Amino acid sequence: MSCSADLAPHLGNVSAAEYICNKFTDSNFAINNTYLLFSAYFVFMMQCGFAMLCAGAVRKKNTNNIMLINAMNAVVGAISYYLFGFAFAFGQPSNKFIGKHFFALKDIPSESSYMDYSNFLYQWTFAIAAAGITSGSIAERTHFSACLIYSFFLTGFVYPVLSHWYWSPDGWANPCRGPGALLFSSGVIDFAGSGVVHMVGGIAGFWGALIEGPRIGRFIDGYNYKPRGHNPALSLLGTFVLWFGWYGFNPGSFLIINKTYGASGSFYGQWSAVGRTAVTTTLSGTAAGLTMIIVKKFLTGSWGYLVDACNGMLGGFVAITSGCSVVEPWAAIICGIVSALVLLWLNMLSEKFKFDDPLEAAQLYGGCGTLGLLFTSLFAKKEFVNEVYGERPGGRPYGVYMGGGGNLFAAHIVAILVNIGWVSATMVPLFFLLKHLNLLRVSLEDELHGMDMTQHEGPRMLIEW
Amino acid sequence: MSCSADLAPHLGNVSAAEYICNKFTDSNFAINNTYLLFSAYFVFMMQCGFAMLCAGAVRKKNTNNIMLINAMNAVVGAISYYLFGFAFAFGQPSNKFIGKHFFALKDIPSESSYMDYSNFLYQWTFAIAAAGITSGSIAERTHFSACLIYSFFLTGFVYPVLSHWYWSPDGWANPCRGPGALLFSSGVIDFAGSGVVHMVGGIAGFWGALIEGPRIGRFIDGYNYKPRGHNPALSLLGTFVLWFGWYGFNPGSFLIINKTYGASGSFYGQWSAVGRTAVTTTLSGTAAGLTMIIVKKFLTGSWGYLVDACNGMLGGFVAITSGCSVVEPWAAIICGIVSALVLLWLNMLSEKFKFDDPLEAAQLYGGCGTLGLLFTSLFAKKEFVNEVYGERPGGRPYGVYMGGGGNLFAAHIVAILVNIGWVSATMVPLFFLLKHLNLLRVSLEDELHGMDMTQHEGPRMLIEW
Amino acid sequence: MSCSADLAPHLGNVSAAEYICNKFTDSNFAINNTYLLFSAYFVFMMQCGFAMLCAGAVRKKNTNNIMLINAMNAVVGAISYYLFGFAFAFGQPSNKFIGKHFFALKDIPSESSYMDYSNFLYQWTFAIAAAGITSGSIAERTHFSACLIYSFFLTGFVYPVLSHWYWSPDGWANPCRGPGALLFSSGVIDFAGSGVVHMVGGIAGFWGALIEGPRIGRFIDGYNYKPRGHNPALSLLGTFVLWFGWYGFNPGSFLIINKTYGASGSFYGQWSAVGRTAVTTTLSGTAAGLTMIIVKKFLTGSWGYLVDACNGMLGGFVAITSGCSVVEPWAAIICGIVSALVLLWLNMLSEKFKFDDPLEAAQLYGGCGTLGLLFTSLFAKKEFVNEVYGERPGGRPYGVYMGGGGNLFAAHIVAILVNIGWVSATMVPLFFLLKHLNLLRVSLEDELHGMDMTQHEGPRMLIEW
Repeated sequence: MSCSADLAPHLGNVSAAEYICNKFTDSNFAINNTYLLFSAYFVFMMQCGFAMLCAGAVRKKNTNNIMLINAMNAVVGAISYYLFGFAFAFGQPSNKFIGKHFFALKDIPSESSYMDYSNFLYQWTFAIAAAGITSGSIAERTHFSACLIYSFFLTGFVYPVLSHWYWSPDGWANPCRGPGALLFSSGVIDFAGSGVVHMVGGIAGFWGALIEGPRIGRFIDGYNYKPRGHNPALSLLGTFVLWFGWYGFNPGSFLIINKTYGASGSFYGQWSAVGRTAVTTTLSGTAAGLTMIIVKKFLTGSWGYLVDACNGMLGGFVAITSGCSVVEPWAAIICGIVSALVLLWLNMLSEKFKFDDPLEAAQLYGGCGTLGLLFTSLFAKKEFVNEVYGERPGGRPYGVYMGGGGNLFAAHIVAILVNIGWVSATMVPLFFLLKHLNLLRVSLEDELHGMDMTQHEGPRMLIEW
Repeated sequence: MSCSADLAPHLGNVSAAEYICNKFTDSNFAINNTYLLFSAYFVFMMQCGFAMLCAGAVRKKNTNNIMLINAMNAVVGAISYYLFGFAFAFGQPSNKFIGKHFFALKDIPSESSYMDYSNFLYQWTFAIAAAGITSGSIAERTHFSACLIYSFFLTGFVYPVLSHWYWSPDGWANPCRGPGALLFSSGVIDFAGSGVVHMVGGIAGFWGALIEGPRIGRFIDGYNYKPRGHNPALSLLGTFVLWFGWYGFNPGSFLIINKTYGASGSFYGQWSAVGRTAVTTTLSGTAAGLTMIIVKKFLTGSWGYLVDACNGMLGGFVAITSGCSVVEPWAAIICGIVSALVLLWLNMLSEKFKFDDPLEAAQLYGGCGTLGLLFTSLFAKKEFVNEVYGERPGGRPYGVYMGGGGNLFAAHIVAILVNIGWVSATMVPLFFLLKHLNLLRVSLEDELHGMDMTQHEGPRMLIEW
Repeated sequence: MSCSADLAPHLGNVSAAEYICNKFTDSNFAINNTYLLFSAYFVFMMQCGFAMLCAGAVRKKNTNNIMLINAMNAVVGAISYYLFGFAFAFGQPSNKFIGKHFFALKDIPSESSYMDYSNFLYQWTFAIAAAGITSGSIAERTHFSACLIYSFFLTGFVYPVLSHWYWSPDGWANPCRGPGALLFSSGVIDFAGSGVVHMVGGIAGFWGALIEGPRIGRFIDGYNYKPRGHNPALSLLGTFVLWFGWYGFNPGSFLIINKTYGASGSFYGQWSAVGRTAVTTTLSGTAAGLTMIIVKKFLTGSWGYLVDACNGMLGGFVAITSGCSVVEPWAAIICGIVSALVLLWLNMLSEKFKFDDPLEAAQLYGGCGTLGLLFTSLFAKKEFVNEVYGERPGGRPYGVYMGGGGNLFAAHIVAILVNIGWVSATMVPLFFLLKHLNLLRVSLEDELHGMDMTQHEGPRMLIEW
């Protein structure tokens, strides 16, 4: 331990130094696990947030179906991430592309790189978030069994492999990877996963929605019949729960809170960066929400609908997720403003091209997630990048607008292309296979009657007496 | 303090060792209280979960009533647990059967065994959970005053005495009790309370529902008219909030997180066991939910209803609550699968015997709670039992299937019988007394009109303009 | 650091003492920031609670509007509190009346008095709570733009200045202020803000509701047509989420948890006071809820409506917020009982004087907030006051009924008058200005059609197919 090696000379006593430093080790494990576990619980609640958001946004006849799908994302995802997802993502030792240990939590806990149960739980909550996003895009018209299948595949394989590349100590794009050169001497700074999580869910949703086509009656004779969600209270509840969960998602991604930057004994350390991350997250989401209602007022003359503001806020949260730990609060506000505009523009595009995503999930998570990676490569601050990712001999690239050169930007362009490529290469074949097996989209009659009755209840009499 | 006694010889300096160890004591109290208090807040939210679950599952005419009952469980329970419940349960010094100090929090905080306000708060959240379960079983037909009375009695006396037996340092069934022999040299391993909490609520609910009889029109001429809950979104919300709360319930039951297993300074200690407990909890609930929808599909041809999946998950959480800290993750999956099957079977039985429990609470908490005690006695792992409960000279019994002999199984059979006996012996007379006083079941007219109008509003005009 | 100054003589070694004490500093920052940040997240969720409470309490036609207003309180408040609110409140150095540093978080984090990002986030969640209260009072009839404006003004200026007076180290009424005499040798003990937060929101709401006048049709020909809230499940959900948030609000107001009272190494310290604060909070709210339903039963013969019980509980929480850290648990029960009676009485008064506040927010937060300040000045316990606020030479005044003399009472009378005066002096002109600009109350037609259609959607066709 570095502590006892440092303390022993001061103290002139090795055994006392070891005794004292061991005690510090214990309390650090207790503090950091407390921090990580509670963060994981918060992120878990984002499933509840997605379920409420979706339930509010669909028509009444599909409520049970979409909520059950959201619950099943957590359920199926727990089993598949336990069996192999976590192993593909963080198994150690591994190679640049995929992990191959820790299947079914074998050899966990281990001394290497914080590989404890709390970390598994935390990573699982991220894995199921991706699937939750996708289920919004294909809502109201998809076979329930198709949802179980893509959820298992996405949580157990597609997402874990991608997260290995960026977040595993061995991943080829990790800005902290030990052996081997960094991508563009930089690596990709996707701190909490605008790309790794949100883009993945959004792109998968984009392909799913595209391959299935719009809901019946959505676009007729040039008209745009957008069904209103049946319960805005659930939408707002979902948004608030997601916001709450984001405080586990972004600040929690530090994984440990008791870490000094520079010398010990200063008021400034990772605990402060954690707080700053919570603040940038807040400011981006709120700036986006405010931008959305103001632009709506400007465009339409009225203050816009509740769900517009909710989606605006969520866009801001998605976009800041990549750079939340390495940008200044003022930059987070810029991030939020731009993300609201991007979302508005993508929603207009999707109307124009008759693309139907009931939750705007492809636009929101795919679009603002992509924006987030770009934003980080422009605004990441030197000091913060060095603190969060560790200094490197020769220095680290940082944001273009902050004077950090073009390397981080180049790395992030690669990341965006790779994310799109990987998710497309895995999910498009899956959706086509499901379509070929007639398992993807329900029949015209079933869609009109609603998923609740046709997928879940059978021809059963409703009794209300 | 053992710390300063250990450190002083290393340091050759008693006063410095004391100074340093006192500082460790302070931060340990801060860490552990943070951990316990936040866990308590999570468990408290399970009342919100129960309220939403119940509100979703009853008919609209009874929504206000059932939600108010759930709120009142927390309210009445706070007063009765403050006045005497906590004293009966954890008052020290005490005897094997009941505590007799700490009435109205007198002499709290105290140096003995972690008896601080945060522990009171944590234990209170457990006490009100039991009453919350029972209120589901007797929903839609019970006088509001009866609910206040049984809630006061259950939270203030029935549950506290039982929890004293298993969890108080003096309790006759506690596997850690100091003086005196352990039950079957083992004691009962009901870590977070499949038996102590969930069975209590479930058995009380069973008797309440049985003594009141089914709701009007529930079983007619051999037909089974099961009213559909009026708001599945609330049911799912309740389930997610309960799931969230369970992360306070199960991992929180360690009470302290900063504790080493073996030597100080290792990556492995109670913080890791806490994380493992969160994982076993997750895997059991999710395995149960998945089992439930797959079996429903197999049995009925459709994917089942949202509330079926929710109850399946809850069954898995209830069953793992006893053994969550002492079983391997793979065993938790078995626990979940079996608990879903048990719940399905008990629901079939209850239909057959015309037993009407609107929330399936007796089956779910009573049945899966019992299963949980059995499961722990079969799958508890030697290493984990010794870590969590402390090694004993001569060794501790552990799970039958893990090679630990039959003693733990025998102790758990005793626990099951004692739980059933104690709750029946106290609650059956109470329900019959209430029935005798005509305070138990509302009149036919009131039940048909709904509890909201007849118990709460009076003949008041509804105005919507 | 005092630690190394103390430890060095024991150890006879300055550098070793510094090394060890620096390590303690690090873990203290990690523990305290974890504690404060999670508390902040909980308080943030109170916005979700307010939104649900309001949504449940209004008529369906205004649901989107009121929820969007609640969301916008958080959104607008984040921007205005970031830009200048936090600076006015806690900027240092400052004077007795207003802060003037830290605009847009400049110079944060800083070594002085715990001025880190986590503290900003925590204080922001308090600032938006005040605006949330006000929006309830003027629900169902106010221009959306008026809500944005008062929210910006209240969160960015009115509340911050007031909180500076009581909570900033330089504030004239702060019981801990360094230089200069304390108000009545005492200062104002408004620990978590019955006055600073709840009264502010309540008084602002009172003036808003009074200046706007009652909703159309509320009082006709001497009759009292009180519209029933359209969704009691949302009201209860909101109440539970607020209750949950209060555990961040009250115990969280200690800001740090790792602090000893007296000598180091004792089981008793700030962690215990934190737990006690959670307990007094719980007992006051529950005692108030129980009082409310019992009195309703006594007055009307029926057990009262769900929302009555919810408001009763909230009244108890509001009233205890001032004294939660300095009163005994038994006193908290008295506080709760009295607050329920005060709320009932104020509601009767408001009916009599034809004052229409759809959420009873003026009565609840204004009335019970005032009660809270009085209660603290009567029941604050000497020992707790000295622990929480620090001993002073010559002693500190404490509660009148606890033998502490009249100084605290006098200071709190001043505080009540000052709060009423300041909020009235700032908000009344604002409301009249808005009225003058025809921005305050919507037209008769718009109010009758509902805010959702007229403020947010435009004449758009609702499609449900």
